[in-house]
Amino acid sequence: MSTERRRRSSERSQGRGTAAIPQLPLRRVQNPYPPMALLSADQIEAIHEASMHILENFGIEVMSPRALSLFEKAGAKVDHATQTVWLDRGMVADALKTTQSSYTLTPRNLARKINLGGNDINFTLVAGPPNVHDMERGRRAGNYADYCDLVRLAQHFNCIHMIGNQVCAPVEMPANSRHLDTYFANVTLTDKSFHVSAIGRGRALDGIAMMAISRGLTLDQMRDDPGVTTIISVNSPRRFDDMMAEGLMTMAEFGQSVAVTPFTLMGAMSPVTLAGALAQQNAEALFGVVLTQLVRPGAPVMYGAFTSNVDMRSGAPAFGTPENTKANIASGQLARRYSLPYRTTPGSASNAADAQGTYETMMALWGAVLGHGNLVYHAAGWQEGGLTASFEKLIIDVEMIQHMMEFLTPIEVNEGELALDALGRVPTGGHFFGEPHTLERYSTAFYQPMLSNWQNYEAWQEAGGLDATARATRLWKKALEEYVEPEMDVSVREALEAYVAKRKEEIGVEEP
Amino acid sequence: MSTERRRRSSERSQGRGTAAIPQLPLRRVQNPYPPMALLSADQIEAIHEASMHILENFGIEVMSPRALSLFEKAGAKVDHATQTVWLDRGMVADALKTTQSSYTLTPRNLARKINLGGNDINFTLVAGPPNVHDMERGRRAGNYADYCDLVRLAQHFNCIHMIGNQVCAPVEMPANSRHLDTYFANVTLTDKSFHVSAIGRGRALDGIAMMAISRGLTLDQMRDDPGVTTIISVNSPRRFDDMMAEGLMTMAEFGQSVAVTPFTLMGAMSPVTLAGALAQQNAEALFGVVLTQLVRPGAPVMYGAFTSNVDMRSGAPAFGTPENTKANIASGQLARRYSLPYRTTPGSASNAADAQGTYETMMALWGAVLGHGNLVYHAAGWQEGGLTASFEKLIIDVEMIQHMMEFLTPIEVNEGELALDALGRVPTGGHFFGEPHTLERYSTAFYQPMLSNWQNYEAWQEAGGLDATARATRLWKKALEEYVEPEMDVSVREALEAYVAKRKEEIGVEEP
Repeated sequence: MSTERRRRSSERSQGRGTAAIPQLPLRRVQNPYPPMALLSADQIEAIHEASMHILENFGIEVMSPRALSLFEKAGAKVDHATQTVWLDRGMVADALKTTQSSYTLTPRNLARKINLGGNDINFTLVAGPPNVHDMERGRRAGNYADYCDLVRLAQHFNCIHMIGNQVCAPVEMPANSRHLDTYFANVTLTDKSFHVSAIGRGRALDGIAMMAISRGLTLDQMRDDPGVTTIISVNSPRRFDDMMAEGLMTMAEFGQSVAVTPFTLMGAMSPVTLAGALAQQNAEALFGVVLTQLVRPGAPVMYGAFTSNVDMRSGAPAFGTPENTKANIASGQLARRYSLPYRTTPGSASNAADAQGTYETMMALWGAVLGHGNLVYHAAGWQEGGLTASFEKLIIDVEMIQHMMEFLTPIEVNEGELALDALGRVPTGGHFFGEPHTLERYSTAFYQPMLSNWQNYEAWQEAGGLDATARATRLWKKALEEYVEPEMDVSVREALEAYVAKRKEEIGVEEP
Repeated sequence: MSTERRRRSSERSQGRGTAAIPQLPLRRVQNPYPPMALLSADQIEAIHEASMHILENFGIEVMSPRALSLFEKAGAKVDHATQTVWLDRGMVADALKTTQSSYTLTPRNLARKINLGGNDINFTLVAGPPNVHDMERGRRAGNYADYCDLVRLAQHFNCIHMIGNQVCAPVEMPANSRHLDTYFANVTLTDKSFHVSAIGRGRALDGIAMMAISRGLTLDQMRDDPGVTTIISVNSPRRFDDMMAEGLMTMAEFGQSVAVTPFTLMGAMSPVTLAGALAQQNAEALFGVVLTQLVRPGAPVMYGAFTSNVDMRSGAPAFGTPENTKANIASGQLARRYSLPYRTTPGSASNAADAQGTYETMMALWGAVLGHGNLVYHAAGWQEGGLTASFEKLIIDVEMIQHMMEFLTPIEVNEGELALDALGRVPTGGHFFGEPHTLERYSTAFYQPMLSNWQNYEAWQEAGGLDATARATRLWKKALEEYVEPEMDVSVREALEAYVAKRKEEIGVEEP
C-alpha cells in the first residue's frame, strides 16, 4: 500500500509538471570533527566544583515525597519541610557509574532508529508553542489540524529524526487528554521516535504504552529497548516540581530516555554571567541525572542544556545570541565531562521567518553542531522564542539543517577527486563544464538546496521575485501534497484507537 | 572640529528623541580558538603535491612580458610564445622564505591600523558590484552618490575594518579615471585602509599615492609601512592576465599588500571536486605569491581563496553553500601550511536581503571564522552573487559580524563570574533580576544587537510588525544621519584634490 500510495503521489506531482522537492536521503548524521572547546580543562573543573558546591551546600528543591524518599534512602541529606535535597559529590559520581554514554531510541520503523551519543546528531521539530503561524493564514492558536500537518512535514523531511513535544498545543481539545490525540498523530502520521510529555506519571505512561503498541512490544520489552524520550525542564533556579519529578521517575522506571534540561536564562533564572549560569545548569542537570539512576540504574539519560540570556532592558528572553551560542558549545564540554549524551537547542526570538530568525537560529545551530549536540531539539519551526510554530520557518530550518549535514560530510582527497587529468587538459582560461571528470560527477557533486534560488536577478524577477519566506510557503504546501502516510497494520491502528478510547474514558472529559 | 561635529550630531539625535544605534566599540578582532581542521595532514600534503604537479607540469599563463622575464631570470622554464611559466617546487619554497606570516596596514588614522595574520580577523565592505539596491529606491546602476553613502556606512560601523574595491561602480563617471574619485571618497569620507584597484600599473599607483598623501608620507616611506591592499583575481584556470600581472608587480614594487585570489568555481573554472579545486587554487595562489617575491622579497602577500560551486543545472555561481563553507575552512589550512595570511569571503547568491541571503552568508561566514580568515573580504553588503551592493544586506551583515565578534570573546571563569554568592541567595524558583551580582553587571553583560527585535509579538505588531529587512532600511538611514566625516587637514585635502585633478588631466577624458 505504501508503495502504491507513493506511486500515486509521484504521479500527482508529475501531473502538475513539477518535480518532487529535492531533499537529502534518510541518513545517519555524524559530526566527524572534534568538538569545539571554548572552556579550558581548568575552567571546566572550576564550573564542576562550583556546581558541586551548589549541590552540597545550597541544595535542590524537589516537590515530590517519592523523590525525597529515594534521595534519603540513598544517603542524601533531606529536609522534608522545605523539600530540599543536598547531594554530596560521591552520590553524583556513583550515579555517573551507571549512566550510558550512548543509547538508541527505536520507533516502529527500524530504519528510523536513532543513536543518542558519540558523534551522532539528531534534529527534532519545535516543541511546545501555544500558537501556529503561516504567511497565508496568519497567527492563530494551536489546533489539531495544524498539529497533524506539522508532524506530516516532520515525517516528510528526512533530516528531522524525531518529533519533539507537542509542535503546537491543540487548544480546542480537553487539556487532560489531548496528549493522547497528539501521541496518536505522532505514531500514525509518522514512523519516527517522539517525545512524550512527562508532566506527571499518566502522560508519560500513555506515551510509552502507545509507542509499545506501535512496535508490538510489551511495556516490559520496551524497558531495555527504549523508543521515546522526554525533556525534564527544571524550574530553575534549583527546583524540580512534582509533575516533572513524577514524570522523570516514570520514564526512568520504564527505561525510557530523559533529557534533564535546566532553563537557565542568564539574568533571570540564573546569574547574569555565563560561568555562573553554567555552574547552575550543571548542578541542576546532574541532580536530575542522579534521580534517574536512583530509580533505575542504567536508565537512559541525557545532559540537557538551554542557557541563553534575556534582553536586560526588558527582561524578555533572547535566543541565538552570541552568549547562547557559546553556552551551546561549552555545555557540550560539560556533558562530555560526565560521558553523557548531550541535548541542545537552536532558537530565535524573532517574530517572523525573516533574516533575524535566520541569523539567530544559525548562530545557535552552529553552536549546537560545533558543541556536538546529540539531540538538537526545537530544530525546525521555532519562532517568537518558542511561542509559535511557523510553517515557513520550518522550511527555512530544514534547509539550514541540510546545509549543516552536507557541511559535515568529510572532504575526500584521492586521485579521482584531485582531478589532475582534467586540470592538465583544460586550457588556461578555459572551463571544466564539458570535461569527462565533470560529466561523470556533476549530478551529485554538490548539495542541491530546496529553498535557495540561484536564478539571476532578471529571471528571478520574471518568476515573481519571491523572497525565501514566500518560497517557503510554496514548499510546505507542496511537501504536504507529497507527504505519504507510513503504512500501519490495521490491527495496530485499532489497538492504538482502543487505547486512546479507554484512556479518555478513564481520564474523563474536561473542558479545553 | 571632529569633536564639535560629533557633539552636534549627537545633539541632533537627542533632539529627535532617538538614541544612537548601538554598536560594538572599535576593537581588534581575534579568534582565540584553534582553527578548525577539515583536512588531515596527509590530505593537505596530497593537495600540496597535486598543486606542485600543476606548477611543474601544466604551467601557468602570464600575459605580461615583464613577468615572464622575471620568472625566466629566476630560473623558471618559460615559453614566450604561449606565455607559459613552469615553476619547480624549489622556487616556491624559496619565495616562501621571504614572505611575511603577518603584517600591518596603516591608514591615516593610526587607531584604524589593522593586522593581517595570526589570529586577527578583519572585515571589509562588498567590492565590485555593478548595481546598488535598497528597499525604498529599488535596484539601480552603481553611481557615485551611492558609492559615497556606502563608504560612509563602512566608516560609521566599527566592525568594518577596511574598504574593499569599489563598493559599487560609479558608472556615470569616465571608466578610465573613476578610480580616482572612488579613492578620494575612500580617503576623505573614511579614515580606514582601503583596497586599490590593480587593473594595471596606473590605478595601483594612484591608490598608493593617495594613501601616502593622506598619511603625509612619500611613496618611499610607504614601502616599508604599507597602507593599502589589492586583490589579484586569477583568471582561473591557470591564467594571469596582463593588467592583473602589472598591478600585482606594481603593488609588490611599492611594498603594498596583495591577496592573490584564484576564482575557482567548482564545475566551471575548476574541477567539480573540492580536492581538485583546492589543488588548482593552491597552485594559482602560490604562483602569484612567487611573483610578488621575485619583484620584491618580503613584499606583503596573502593567500587568497574563493572556491565555491556552481548550480550544475544552470551553471550559475552559488555562494554560502556547504561546499563553499568547507572550502573556506580547508583553504585556511592551506594558507597556514605556507605561513601566509589568509583572505576569504562569505557570500550568497540570493537576490534579496532575505532568509536565503542570511543563511548562505552565515554558512560562509562561519567557514571564514572557523578557518581563521585574516581578511574577510566582501563581508558587508554582498547580494546577488556580488552583482549588487545592498544597503539592507549591509546592515544585516554588520549585525552578523558583530555576533561573531562577541562569540569570539572568551568565556571568563573566576569567582565573580561563577556567582556562588548570588546562587546561594536566590531562593529555589526565584529570580536573579534584583541581585547585586546582576545589577552590577547587567548593563554590559550581554551583546546588544542593533537589528534584532526582541519585543513580544503584540508589541512588535503594534510597532508596525516590521521584519528585519524593513528595520534594516531604518537603520542605514539613521546611520547615515549619525555618520561623522573624519577630520582632515585642509592642506591634505587640497593635496589630494590636486593629485586627482593632475591625474585626470594626464589620463584625459573618456566617456563613461
